[in-house]
Amino acid sequence: MSFPLAPGATIGILGAGQLGRMLAMAAARLGFDVIVLTPEENSPAARVCAGAIVAAYDDLSALDVLADRCGVITCEFENVPARALAHLEQRGALVAPCSRAFALAQDRLAEKTFLNEAGLPTVRFAQVDGEKDLDAALELLGAPLLLKTRRGGYDGKGQVWVRSAPEAASAFEAIGRRPAIAETPADFVRECAVIAARGRDGQTALYPLTRSEHEGGILRRTIAPAEAAPATLAAAAQAAERLLVALDYVGVLGLELFERADGSLLVNEFAPRVHNTGHWTLDGCAVDQFEQHVRAVAGWPLGPTDALARVEMLNLLGEDVDRWEVLASDPSARLWLYGKADARDGRKMGHVNLVSPLAL
Amino acid sequence: MSFPLAPGATIGILGAGQLGRMLAMAAARLGFDVIVLTPEENSPAARVCAGAIVAAYDDLSALDVLADRCGVITCEFENVPARALAHLEQRGALVAPCSRAFALAQDRLAEKTFLNEAGLPTVRFAQVDGEKDLDAALELLGAPLLLKTRRGGYDGKGQVWVRSAPEAASAFEAIGRRPAIAETPADFVRECAVIAARGRDGQTALYPLTRSEHEGGILRRTIAPAEAAPATLAAAAQAAERLLVALDYVGVLGLELFERADGSLLVNEFAPRVHNTGHWTLDGCAVDQFEQHVRAVAGWPLGPTDALARVEMLNLLGEDVDRWEVLASDPSARLWLYGKADARDGRKMGHVNLVSPLAL
Repeated sequence: MSFPLAPGATIGILGAGQLGRMLAMAAARLGFDVIVLTPEENSPAARVCAGAIVAAYDDLSALDVLADRCGVITCEFENVPARALAHLEQRGALVAPCSRAFALAQDRLAEKTFLNEAGLPTVRFAQVDGEKDLDAALELLGAPLLLKTRRGGYDGKGQVWVRSAPEAASAFEAIGRRPAIAETPADFVRECAVIAARGRDGQTALYPLTRSEHEGGILRRTIAPAEAAPATLAAAAQAAERLLVALDYVGVLGLELFERADGSLLVNEFAPRVHNTGHWTLDGCAVDQFEQHVRAVAGWPLGPTDALARVEMLNLLGEDVDRWEVLASDPSARLWLYGKADARDGRKMGHVNLVSPLAL
Repeated sequence: MSFPLAPGATIGILGAGQLGRMLAMAAARLGFDVIVLTPEENSPAARVCAGAIVAAYDDLSALDVLADRCGVITCEFENVPARALAHLEQRGALVAPCSRAFALAQDRLAEKTFLNEAGLPTVRFAQVDGEKDLDAALELLGAPLLLKTRRGGYDGKGQVWVRSAPEAASAFEAIGRRPAIAETPADFVRECAVIAARGRDGQTALYPLTRSEHEGGILRRTIAPAEAAPATLAAAAQAAERLLVALDYVGVLGLELFERADGSLLVNEFAPRVHNTGHWTLDGCAVDQFEQHVRAVAGWPLGPTDALARVEMLNLLGEDVDRWEVLASDPSARLWLYGKADARDGRKMGHVNLVSPLAL
């Protein structure tokens, strides 16, 4: 297989939720076929692509079938078993982003260590493998600390506050006595994100900085582009560029940032994939994050990333999706629904982009 | 089934070429599943939708399966056998647009007669069932005439010029001695088109007039929006509105127009479906013709139709598609490829929208 990958080739995706669904549609626009591998029957992405292999992510024979059929393989989520990616890479399948980005993103301690080494500032943190480490961390970093499992957990799950040494034991118990990281609180005034892309030739492209609003650890709203001081915008861009290069990255990634009162930034985390904070690009940019990711992994040139409109992206969580009829009547609302049947509390059912002209 | 059709419902499409492919992607964005029925294995649309029934269009048991699974059924092309639509309607399936629009669009004589009765001007024409009718038509309308089969033929096929009475016999032979229509040449200076939509509630929405350039009977280029005199723009809009109402239409249709030197318009023909001259809306409008059609047939409110950009749409015919690599490098070029393997001469393999700011 040589790059750029020609239309007509097949792209494999590990995972088949809404991110895979929107990736598959973008790939189809460019003339690619898509096959997803997912343990889920009737997944959101399977209904918009050429084929679905229903199997566990670490089912090696299923991975072999995928590799045989695909020119390149990518992922819609970061918690793909390392064993699966290693197997694909060992048998010569072209996987992008590479397994290293996933290994880092799957381990909060390794991720923050890597970020600091690459010159990207984060909150202060300490490794916690037992209650004694947590006591030491409280002594070193002060209280309160946020105790998080190193692996697993998302959207606010798998973490607990520790306000004093006597709480250490119960806190460590609460996260399941698993290898953990203790972090100082981020003294932020708002949360931001950058969607960044890097091609196979090293070309990079950054979408404008956006503002994120979370509730209960789940993204509710993105405002794009974010207003920010020039120095803040420059720092965000520099951080994203550094990260892309440090990872020797190919594809789109989401970089989540904390902005402090003085305009300086801390990196919260990165996701080696298209990202919820980039959904605004579907209706705010000529080339959205999904097409950009397909372009990058297929070895195509990256597309333009300027904001062509102001977009307010609202996630439709659980029963929010029942608002579809009202939103369908709003001429400024572009609706993206994920084809999920069961509107459980907090489940991402879709999103809406409210589009308005850019302020001049 | 009640309207508006809720997300999660299934939409059936007869036909599965590029129009079905882009319809299916639009339906998925709104949370619908799509099933196509097509005689073609591995069709362009089948690779982006939830299911495909591979069967002849008049396979009644296949149509029954489709009807059982779908909340509403639509078509991506106008030459669906009347028998198929009648069968679906008889068994209570909700078909949009209705079979009458197809019956008219399938018969050039019925279509032009209907258009004139609805107050839409066309070229002059005469019914030709044999050579004698053609002689009479030449006497009545003068020469030359364009002799076309009443049914079948597209992209310039199934038609022949008749320049004098002695040519009548060979001309009638050339079109296979089939029921025909003889038309006076349209004295046009340019070709235009309007994409028009009508909802289940009678709401209408028109996209801006566009200019069309054909070569060998095949659309090569659309310029959107077209520059035209206010009276011409008004006449085009009036014609489209009249047609939608006269047909009691639900869905998107393409109306092809001839513009004469004095700015007046003649209707060439209409297609009761999304249309190649509307592909520019994919990158020039907030709601493209495909989403608009899905909205209409699903009983949703129609979306906005203003042009947000100037778009030059170029069809990629046959080997034109080999230009994908150059087009992928052009930041103003939005590429839409249809996933067809065989780049036969003149075959529509994809299109590109070259996007630039609207002139102020």
